[in-house]
Amino acid sequence: MTTLGIVHRRIVRADAAAVEKLARFGVATVHEALGRVGLMKPYLRPIYKGARMCGTAVTVLLQPGDNWMLHVAAEQLQPGDVVVAACTTDSTDGFFGDLLATSFKARGARGLIIDGGVRDVDELEKMGFPVFSKAIHAKGTIKATLGSVNIPVVCAGALVNPGDVIVADTDGVVVVPAAMAQAVADAAEKRESFEGEKRAKFEAGVLGLDMYQMREPLAKAGLKYID
Amino acid sequence: MTTLGIVHRRIVRADAAAVEKLARFGVATVHEALGRVGLMKPYLRPIYKGARMCGTAVTVLLQPGDNWMLHVAAEQLQPGDVVVAACTTDSTDGFFGDLLATSFKARGARGLIIDGGVRDVDELEKMGFPVFSKAIHAKGTIKATLGSVNIPVVCAGALVNPGDVIVADTDGVVVVPAAMAQAVADAAEKRESFEGEKRAKFEAGVLGLDMYQMREPLAKAGLKYID
Amino acid sequence: MTTLGIVHRRIVRADAAAVEKLARFGVATVHEALGRVGLMKPYLRPIYKGARMCGTAVTVLLQPGDNWMLHVAAEQLQPGDVVVAACTTDSTDGFFGDLLATSFKARGARGLIIDGGVRDVDELEKMGFPVFSKAIHAKGTIKATLGSVNIPVVCAGALVNPGDVIVADTDGVVVVPAAMAQAVADAAEKRESFEGEKRAKFEAGVLGLDMYQMREPLAKAGLKYID
Amino acid sequence: MTTLGIVHRRIVRADAAAVEKLARFGVATVHEALGRVGLMKPYLRPIYKGARMCGTAVTVLLQPGDNWMLHVAAEQLQPGDVVVAACTTDSTDGFFGDLLATSFKARGARGLIIDGGVRDVDELEKMGFPVFSKAIHAKGTIKATLGSVNIPVVCAGALVNPGDVIVADTDGVVVVPAAMAQAVADAAEKRESFEGEKRAKFEAGVLGLDMYQMREPLAKAGLKYID
Amino acid sequence: MTTLGIVHRRIVRADAAAVEKLARFGVATVHEALGRVGLMKPYLRPIYKGARMCGTAVTVLLQPGDNWMLHVAAEQLQPGDVVVAACTTDSTDGFFGDLLATSFKARGARGLIIDGGVRDVDELEKMGFPVFSKAIHAKGTIKATLGSVNIPVVCAGALVNPGDVIVADTDGVVVVPAAMAQAVADAAEKRESFEGEKRAKFEAGVLGLDMYQMREPLAKAGLKYID
Amino acid sequence: MTTLGIVHRRIVRADAAAVEKLARFGVATVHEALGRVGLMKPYLRPIYKGARMCGTAVTVLLQPGDNWMLHVAAEQLQPGDVVVAACTTDSTDGFFGDLLATSFKARGARGLIIDGGVRDVDELEKMGFPVFSKAIHAKGTIKATLGSVNIPVVCAGALVNPGDVIVADTDGVVVVPAAMAQAVADAAEKRESFEGEKRAKFEAGVLGLDMYQMREPLAKAGLKYID
Repeated sequence: MTTLGIVHRRIVRADAAAVEKLARFGVATVHEALGRVGLMKPYLRPIYKGARMCGTAVTVLLQPGDNWMLHVAAEQLQPGDVVVAACTTDSTDGFFGDLLATSFKARGARGLIIDGGVRDVDELEKMGFPVFSKAIHAKGTIKATLGSVNIPVVCAGALVNPGDVIVADTDGVVVVPAAMAQAVADAAEKRESFEGEKRAKFEAGVLGLDMYQMREPLAKAGLKYID
Repeated sequence: MTTLGIVHRRIVRADAAAVEKLARFGVATVHEALGRVGLMKPYLRPIYKGARMCGTAVTVLLQPGDNWMLHVAAEQLQPGDVVVAACTTDSTDGFFGDLLATSFKARGARGLIIDGGVRDVDELEKMGFPVFSKAIHAKGTIKATLGSVNIPVVCAGALVNPGDVIVADTDGVVVVPAAMAQAVADAAEKRESFEGEKRAKFEAGVLGLDMYQMREPLAKAGLKYID
Repeated sequence: MTTLGIVHRRIVRADAAAVEKLARFGVATVHEALGRVGLMKPYLRPIYKGARMCGTAVTVLLQPGDNWMLHVAAEQLQPGDVVVAACTTDSTDGFFGDLLATSFKARGARGLIIDGGVRDVDELEKMGFPVFSKAIHAKGTIKATLGSVNIPVVCAGALVNPGDVIVADTDGVVVVPAAMAQAVADAAEKRESFEGEKRAKFEAGVLGLDMYQMREPLAKAGLKYID
Repeated sequence: MTTLGIVHRRIVRADAAAVEKLARFGVATVHEALGRVGLMKPYLRPIYKGARMCGTAVTVLLQPGDNWMLHVAAEQLQPGDVVVAACTTDSTDGFFGDLLATSFKARGARGLIIDGGVRDVDELEKMGFPVFSKAIHAKGTIKATLGSVNIPVVCAGALVNPGDVIVADTDGVVVVPAAMAQAVADAAEKRESFEGEKRAKFEAGVLGLDMYQMREPLAKAGLKYID
Repeated sequence: MTTLGIVHRRIVRADAAAVEKLARFGVATVHEALGRVGLMKPYLRPIYKGARMCGTAVTVLLQPGDNWMLHVAAEQLQPGDVVVAACTTDSTDGFFGDLLATSFKARGARGLIIDGGVRDVDELEKMGFPVFSKAIHAKGTIKATLGSVNIPVVCAGALVNPGDVIVADTDGVVVVPAAMAQAVADAAEKRESFEGEKRAKFEAGVLGLDMYQMREPLAKAGLKYID
Repeated sequence: MTTLGIVHRRIVRADAAAVEKLARFGVATVHEALGRVGLMKPYLRPIYKGARMCGTAVTVLLQPGDNWMLHVAAEQLQPGDVVVAACTTDSTDGFFGDLLATSFKARGARGLIIDGGVRDVDELEKMGFPVFSKAIHAKGTIKATLGSVNIPVVCAGALVNPGDVIVADTDGVVVVPAAMAQAVADAAEKRESFEGEKRAKFEAGVLGLDMYQMREPLAKAGLKYID
């Protein structure tokens, strides 16, 4: 019907200030601030140590073994964007390498999240172009079948709408709906403000049992200590 | 019946001197010294390069998506312990992060082996708190259901009794029953004492075929050379 | 019948100059030059960052949990060889460690590709002996059952004949049939000569859409832009 | 924020006549009619031979190891509905068994699609209550944490909105957006009307090469026949 | 040390009457009666539809690709036993086929649970010899390396002691410690006695929300209904 | 270079009489007769109960998500052939359905072995057209990229040359090189002739320990019995 063969030129990107604020927090914190949802599956891994990114999603729906739509997506990129590439079926082919990365970078893209494979990973690391992928695979792709750009996609188990905020670090990848970006950033900030105090207490030897007052609910739940 | 909802406060830890001696050897050597058993499955991987540990097991049985029992376990930790966390069912959720690590470290724990996921891995690396896990996943957990602490658990395919010695390095994780710790440490030492000599011979170009006198048994087994 | 229990002493190695030329290119480039075939499956991964190799294959067919044939293979190694080890059935045991690596290295081997597990990976990294494997596993192996050396094997999904060229880097492992080594090396060189120019254009902001003249075929295929 | 802890009582179900028409076609046909999208991942399998269903989705977002929301969903069921259960994280626990099936059936439900495990499968087969699941697992679940009912969910890689049409048979599970149900049903009918003719030709020995006029494009693409 | 190369001739089997009583219940019920523990992982599947068994465990620890110990185990079998075979490492080889099944059956065995592969499955079905396995694989095995018989083993993630009760049906495999067999059988009976009443209520359209009085705790947990 | 885009019209099929003789034996027996090699990986499963086949291989190399070459292969089929389809990369798409099956059947093909997915499996069962596949998936494929027909392929881990004999039954799939077909058939016959006698002994209660005279080698290997 109408899912394939479409490029949406106009998308509503999350508020830039909210994006920058979200960039200050880790994925675990953002995911908690969002209410414990929005994570991609943990099989997506950074292709090099220290890869991380935060930006607004330009989405791509690929066909297996075909990277044509990544070239189409390049034209839709604006500085601060992150490309989020899904595929109509499971594929670990190397859809993306250093040449496309050069193009994306020239357009101002901050990185790529791909539910598929990539190659030229040593070069990508040298370029400092972060990628989170399902596989590293030298397998080349063709340019023969239409997919789409900037439609809602399901990438590694998460729904991504164009313009949503993508935060990715060593702990994984989280998607923040564009309309919630500011609220989530604020919630993340609040959440993190409590962490220092907790950490200090833990360092001093206070137990979570006491800090979170768990002893009573544990006893109520029936926990038995045996000497 | 009685497996869940129990905390054993008294456990018999392996002899401290034996533990320290075991700490000198790699996992492969300890596993061989133990008679080629005791390994956890290889899907457990260190969360950062160079992570390694040796200590006595405080065991935890978790429920899926619930890390309540890790807080209960913290109180049972003594310096030199390693937390070994199993789960009643497969789960890759992020049961453990930097705050709990701070608590465990303050109690003297040497690391965590978990048949599940962890998060805050960059912070864990900075803290130098070694973890071997099945996954890295930002997914948060709840505190609602009882598991147990210091009961025998099956973690990544290996039986672990509280007090057993856990040795973990890049090659994997091995469990040494507490009662065998000294004997295994001695066997490991003996085994390693032969390695230097063998290595020197290999470096000099001697073949395993000759060093281990394999030519005759190979011929007997029917090996044929074709020119 | 005749597959097991055989060692071919004479194999035809790919031309040495062609091998050295191939060593200059990455796996992705060689795979493209070969016509987009010849890759092993992406579950084979380097055991340490930066591991890479290029050499001529000495093939081994192992039995599960048994590394006897690796010792037999050692004798057949010549400087510049790469050992390619397949197994008659899926196994992640630690067939290979630092002692065998010392022996292989003394014989001039450049590395190991194994559809199975290895151990002593820290030592292997220190030695600078590159290995691509399916798993890292401390599990020890026995020496009881015959396999073969220098017969055609299927390793991680790719057919490897003794003497073929193996190129391995972070992007994976590719097999170049010995007879095609020179032609593939030439094709790789040619292919790479175009890359610089393309990269410069991409850096300058030229889109793949224009550089590869994709707009017309995309329109013909029915791509629709929506504002 | 607002994803968890919500039950939407009013949903717009696909037109009943369109649903009944879609029920006449197989999943492969519907997927083609939809433009080759909309499939769930193939790891979802029917729990007994011959299980199949077509109905309107009532969606559920579960927490790992917790089936509380399935009871909440029961109340929202209308005759002709199919329950589609996603989970906030991967879990194979047995969220569903014969008692819940009895309840769902009493409410008029036509089946269950669950990205998780089920149990009592022999009883479910006897009851004729079709289920497509990721696993069969006796593991019991708790009732402790809120999820949601009738929000958009990602189930086995596919986005499902409440009211969408779910068609499931031996070939898998496909999701038809409610608004497209009639058009897809018509397209499926049209597609199938051509199948009989094609089948007759194939039976008569006509080759696809000729029937689809592939010889010229194959030659153009460079296909070479060697005698 | 002492784990391998041992056969315990005397084991304490669970009480026969308790075993027969347990045989009346399904795996899901027994698992619940046991307190929601004791399940093997769900990758173990019956090799034919309708396979089920209940008996006392004779345990076997196999080496990869080697079925020698299954012959050793045969001699230890008594009528009513179930063979539980673990392996020192992951292996899907065909350790077991119709000849061994004939031998086991002649000794009175009721079936096999194996964390590995089996073959001759059509013949096994014809014989009515139930097997739950990780794989079906024609791959032959050797008889060269010692394992053990009647030691505690970890099979598919569950600890099994010789003499424990094994219950297996379409829903999976559960292990009941010998000493708890009677109590678990009684608990299972009690549990099942309530099921009929519940089922009748569900059939009559009563909701779990009301039957289990969930509305109040759901509201307390914050569940919101939106019209 | 030359792997893709080729159709070999002339292949040397295994001797017809040898093929028919091989058809009398099960996969496990043929694999043993072949010297315990030649099996495809066990993830290939029959799409319906009782599917089995024996015939000569017409090989196909597919591209991911593209079934064009299956149409090309149809023309090369002769009565008694089995189509063996490999793919240049992992793919579970539904490359094959009832229409192609009708075509293949009309050409005299006996079945399909595919390292990928198929669909229309209910229809395929009704037609009695046996298929062994990696997945069942309704996902449609395109016809855009060249692969090859009747070149050597690696399918599910096994090398298959055009004309080789394929035997497939519930236990899996084995490949017999064409030149060895008669010898393997004879060896299989011989092997099976001993089975009846063995089975009778096992039924009479004779132990493998005695029948195969294992007691002495077991004692020599160090097996200890403990009462």
